[in-house]
Amino acid sequence: MRQDGRSNSQLRAVKITRNYIKHAEGSVLIEVGDTKVICTASVEERVPPFKKDSGEGWVTAEYSMLPRATGVRNSRDISKLRLNGRSQEIQRLIGRSLRTVIDLKLLGERTITVDCDVIQADGGTRTASITGSYVALLDACRKLKDDGLISRMPVIGFVAATSVGIVKGEEMLDLCYAEDSNAGVDMNVVMSDNGEFIEIQATGEKTCFGRKQLDSLLSLAQSGIEELIRVQKEALNN
Amino acid sequence: MRQDGRSNSQLRAVKITRNYIKHAEGSVLIEVGDTKVICTASVEERVPPFKKDSGEGWVTAEYSMLPRATGVRNSRDISKLRLNGRSQEIQRLIGRSLRTVIDLKLLGERTITVDCDVIQADGGTRTASITGSYVALLDACRKLKDDGLISRMPVIGFVAATSVGIVKGEEMLDLCYAEDSNAGVDMNVVMSDNGEFIEIQATGEKTCFGRKQLDSLLSLAQSGIEELIRVQKEALNN
Amino acid sequence: MRQDGRSNSQLRAVKITRNYIKHAEGSVLIEVGDTKVICTASVEERVPPFKKDSGEGWVTAEYSMLPRATGVRNSRDISKLRLNGRSQEIQRLIGRSLRTVIDLKLLGERTITVDCDVIQADGGTRTASITGSYVALLDACRKLKDDGLISRMPVIGFVAATSVGIVKGEEMLDLCYAEDSNAGVDMNVVMSDNGEFIEIQATGEKTCFGRKQLDSLLSLAQSGIEELIRVQKEALNN
Amino acid sequence: MRQDGRSNSQLRAVKITRNYIKHAEGSVLIEVGDTKVICTASVEERVPPFKKDSGEGWVTAEYSMLPRATGVRNSRDISKLRLNGRSQEIQRLIGRSLRTVIDLKLLGERTITVDCDVIQADGGTRTASITGSYVALLDACRKLKDDGLISRMPVIGFVAATSVGIVKGEEMLDLCYAEDSNAGVDMNVVMSDNGEFIEIQATGEKTCFGRKQLDSLLSLAQSGIEELIRVQKEALNN
Amino acid sequence: MRQDGRSNSQLRAVKITRNYIKHAEGSVLIEVGDTKVICTASVEERVPPFKKDSGEGWVTAEYSMLPRATGVRNSRDISKLRLNGRSQEIQRLIGRSLRTVIDLKLLGERTITVDCDVIQADGGTRTASITGSYVALLDACRKLKDDGLISRMPVIGFVAATSVGIVKGEEMLDLCYAEDSNAGVDMNVVMSDNGEFIEIQATGEKTCFGRKQLDSLLSLAQSGIEELIRVQKEALNN
Amino acid sequence: MRQDGRSNSQLRAVKITRNYIKHAEGSVLIEVGDTKVICTASVEERVPPFKKDSGEGWVTAEYSMLPRATGVRNSRDISKLRLNGRSQEIQRLIGRSLRTVIDLKLLGERTITVDCDVIQADGGTRTASITGSYVALLDACRKLKDDGLISRMPVIGFVAATSVGIVKGEEMLDLCYAEDSNAGVDMNVVMSDNGEFIEIQATGEKTCFGRKQLDSLLSLAQSGIEELIRVQKEALNN
Repeated sequence: MRQDGRSNSQLRAVKITRNYIKHAEGSVLIEVGDTKVICTASVEERVPPFKKDSGEGWVTAEYSMLPRATGVRNSRDISKLRLNGRSQEIQRLIGRSLRTVIDLKLLGERTITVDCDVIQADGGTRTASITGSYVALLDACRKLKDDGLISRMPVIGFVAATSVGIVKGEEMLDLCYAEDSNAGVDMNVVMSDNGEFIEIQATGEKTCFGRKQLDSLLSLAQSGIEELIRVQKEALNN
Repeated sequence: MRQDGRSNSQLRAVKITRNYIKHAEGSVLIEVGDTKVICTASVEERVPPFKKDSGEGWVTAEYSMLPRATGVRNSRDISKLRLNGRSQEIQRLIGRSLRTVIDLKLLGERTITVDCDVIQADGGTRTASITGSYVALLDACRKLKDDGLISRMPVIGFVAATSVGIVKGEEMLDLCYAEDSNAGVDMNVVMSDNGEFIEIQATGEKTCFGRKQLDSLLSLAQSGIEELIRVQKEALNN
Repeated sequence: MRQDGRSNSQLRAVKITRNYIKHAEGSVLIEVGDTKVICTASVEERVPPFKKDSGEGWVTAEYSMLPRATGVRNSRDISKLRLNGRSQEIQRLIGRSLRTVIDLKLLGERTITVDCDVIQADGGTRTASITGSYVALLDACRKLKDDGLISRMPVIGFVAATSVGIVKGEEMLDLCYAEDSNAGVDMNVVMSDNGEFIEIQATGEKTCFGRKQLDSLLSLAQSGIEELIRVQKEALNN
Repeated sequence: MRQDGRSNSQLRAVKITRNYIKHAEGSVLIEVGDTKVICTASVEERVPPFKKDSGEGWVTAEYSMLPRATGVRNSRDISKLRLNGRSQEIQRLIGRSLRTVIDLKLLGERTITVDCDVIQADGGTRTASITGSYVALLDACRKLKDDGLISRMPVIGFVAATSVGIVKGEEMLDLCYAEDSNAGVDMNVVMSDNGEFIEIQATGEKTCFGRKQLDSLLSLAQSGIEELIRVQKEALNN
Repeated sequence: MRQDGRSNSQLRAVKITRNYIKHAEGSVLIEVGDTKVICTASVEERVPPFKKDSGEGWVTAEYSMLPRATGVRNSRDISKLRLNGRSQEIQRLIGRSLRTVIDLKLLGERTITVDCDVIQADGGTRTASITGSYVALLDACRKLKDDGLISRMPVIGFVAATSVGIVKGEEMLDLCYAEDSNAGVDMNVVMSDNGEFIEIQATGEKTCFGRKQLDSLLSLAQSGIEELIRVQKEALNN
Repeated sequence: MRQDGRSNSQLRAVKITRNYIKHAEGSVLIEVGDTKVICTASVEERVPPFKKDSGEGWVTAEYSMLPRATGVRNSRDISKLRLNGRSQEIQRLIGRSLRTVIDLKLLGERTITVDCDVIQADGGTRTASITGSYVALLDACRKLKDDGLISRMPVIGFVAATSVGIVKGEEMLDLCYAEDSNAGVDMNVVMSDNGEFIEIQATGEKTCFGRKQLDSLLSLAQSGIEELIRVQKEALNN
């Protein structure tokens, strides 16, 4: 049994609260165990230069942690005048993941910026950000449709993500921070609701890993993501 | 009657939730109407250079808004590589206000950094930040005392703040964003529980103001702050 | 008697030298005791984005100190890659103060940037900057009118500023640096020539203050500012 | 047949020139087809703060492209005052990959910084950087041993990397730029000489991918990396 | 005759006012025609890392222009987050020039930072900065000696500088801005009082130049610099 | 005899390899002894603001060193967030030098950016950059002409550069790093093929210098540059 009483193949409690920030076109608070992320989707009627006059829109993401989202206070990016390398990597991942389920033509020449701000971190912040921001993004698109700005929903599938890893020889789903710190192999998996992969980032932090371990971890991730997509659907139906 | 049904001398609903972020030594979510700020107080066992070997500690503050805390998305400071001028001004005010009620000698050579992150803005974010961060600061000091790191509480009074202003000729307490935008005179008042002023920032945004108007506004502020200190005390007793 | 022989209600010697920098549309050297600030007003035929096509102009200010304007050398902002927080706060105050006496419609779609560069500091640099830059601004407007670019003067009143404070129990006008460092209460007051307030920034640096102290300090400030406006008028008549 | 005449499972010509920069402790020019990267390994007798007094050393990497390494000139990071997000991501990957084959205890309290500067880019710059910098790192370690600074080699295995992808339905090894731009699925694989994975980054750029495709791509990558390790060994024996 | 009535071999009026800024160890206002520069020399009891424990001190310079020192307002370096390239080049030249006449051993382990702030520019600001800052530097050294911090003056010669150029075929000394803008060849010359060169920067802005022209320009510069050193000596004797 | 066996008036071996980077319109690797610089010339169909609608083009340069081009690793500009002062100075020199031999009207409204990236440094990197980038620039112009974008070559002469100096009393041509570090007088000379000077930068690093030394050094430089122009011509004929 794991430190919080879960079995190895069990997700932490997941809760998605929609319309969390009144100003945003879409917004959720996603809680995965003690990890809490505010995801807002903001629509702007302009596109970056490389999409100008393309008839297509753009979806991009920014990720950040509040200074005291973690056990030790981190100084803000602005006080160091540089964007944290880890944040940069994560926000590129979130943007790529969301764009795979958006038809940019149907979106039209506008930009949706998804902001993922971690207010409390306990492992799995990047995957929680993806899972939560998908719902915020969908709500923003619904609003565009309700407002008559687009005629068809540009969202063409579901996307959710989780982490898996090998901790002291055990394959585990949805690592909390303490588990993640001890993981020999650590993997973030992003999947669509068609059961296929959008992104796999597998890292042998302490040890290498073979094809067999990769396979079991992917199966574990898949079962978790199916569950997460059920939670997304439920949230969207309320 | 005001747009949200309040009388001119009425505060918005105020709610202070303590222990909001599990990692921080002190933390609250303060809600003043639709304005919501997460305030964390982080203790670090070091002081800035100008306090080295002084036997005294330091209290400082940082203030920021999530990009979509407002009606229109604001780009992050880091994407412009400069700290917003308004944020800079506000965090200096918060720090000064909190330091007036802290005995830095009793705190000892350590720093408490208060982070005020506005997750939803509807006017009065700076005064809500002061009112909320006082509670977070006090909780952090209590923890220091409980942990045996200090022997006496370094907090020597209460501090709370509110805004007042003249909107279309009416003197009003605790302006929401719509009122604030139309205010001819705008004033932020910080007071101690001894009924005296810690800071007054009065600005004639559209019109000048005389001694008489100043006087009524200060009275209005005083009544509001007395109420806010009652809310702080209540929160701290739970 | 104060350290420089003044009475508590006496300003330091004030001298305003117009046309100090030959290139600027308006420029003065203002000396208030040993505090010396060069204020230039530069006209540019363009407006910031938020004033585009509004028919209105803009007035903004920048404030800085030469590295050795002070007792100890300060490194330049550029060497730290960040604008000093205090400078930021001050330049926002100068800009707000000047805008209250300018009719932006009469100015037309152009920007006047006022630069206040402190070459020697001895307390009261922000209030000297306001008092001096008003004269530079007025000269720049006169030049616009003389050049036929505007038909009516957009300046609709006078603005000047001074500091007051409580030093070792004594209420004093126009604090020099040594007095300011020992002030328990410190206040910057900006007034118009109609005898009303434009901005009040009152800070209990070491002690709180009550309504009564506030009142006497404001009276002291008012008498000083009346005198400063006389000096401005005299300078403008030469 | 591919545009450059290769079969789908064929690497481009790989050439590793050791001792390319006379000043560096280790340095190579690695050429993979038209992709050319200078990798230098620099030894410094100090460690980052988090390794201080740990008895362990550190290996880190920096990655950059010359402005005209690509078809269109890219402005330098310094002219935008921010490190390119893609570079940041890549240099984190290079550093992680190299650290998996270094015993930091045997290295002792010193830092090896690997600089990968792409002088000509034609796809696969990050994997070429890993493959090349491994050789530079090993040469730097040999020099440490030859100079008597360490007694045992801290390098505990080989590491090399390549890319694989699905281009117009074909699974291909070692994509050049034109292929990479058209890839539906794109994967960077880092492996050790024990036949296990160090890192897998698989991205469905245009389409999702299933377990079966993942498996064939990993096999393709594995065969390529085995070949690359042979090239490394040969280079190191000259 | 030149536009300001001078002959080709005549300097503009030069005036050096010592003790211009009360806080600095040495300070002058140097006026060369309409070019006005404040030069301060600040002593700090520490040295840069590369001089630590060397027994030697350091002399360095910073150069900047007030935004409206010129005909058109220049935005401040901090608003562009980068030090102006021309300023950088000039301050390196000033520092090098001053160091040639300072015995760093006699100075002892302390730093003198010379700040040259141009308050009004009309050509020749870099050479006026060198000529003026020499006097400020000497005054700072005298103060060190008077205060008993050093036993012997570390200044081992005089240094002054001027510009020469070829304007519409005429060789001219000490170019004002209008002449400088039209110069085909432009030269800044720094000399010691021993009649030798410290630095020559000759640029064919519009045309190349031969050995003969170089020779006459150097003679012209030499006569000007001899005059400038007389002015320095006179200022130092008052 | 010098440490590498050369006579005092002898250049190091010079090698210019054209078409070194396949993407650039013009590119060379220039090797002067152990100094190696990649020079690329990139054509862009736009001009900086100050050339807009002027009918003229622009030529500009950027200069940088790879971190380990030198004996000790230098951190990258981006990690310090500021462009190295020496690089700034050098790239301004390269740009000025190249512009003297380009007819900007014949170039038309386009920009050629020359990037000089030093991959290995052993003294004389700035003069090697000028000599090499001239060839890259010329190749880029030839390409413009071949592509029919311009009708006449805008290059109106040759430009090359070398360093000379006085090392332990000996006048020497083309200093390597070890010689440069010991030079009392150090001079960079840029000349045209008409035997005239474009730029002279002479610095008395350790000692002043007189007219006679200047003259001999200039003769030495001239003979070296004539040789360098022969090498350029030969390279361009292959």
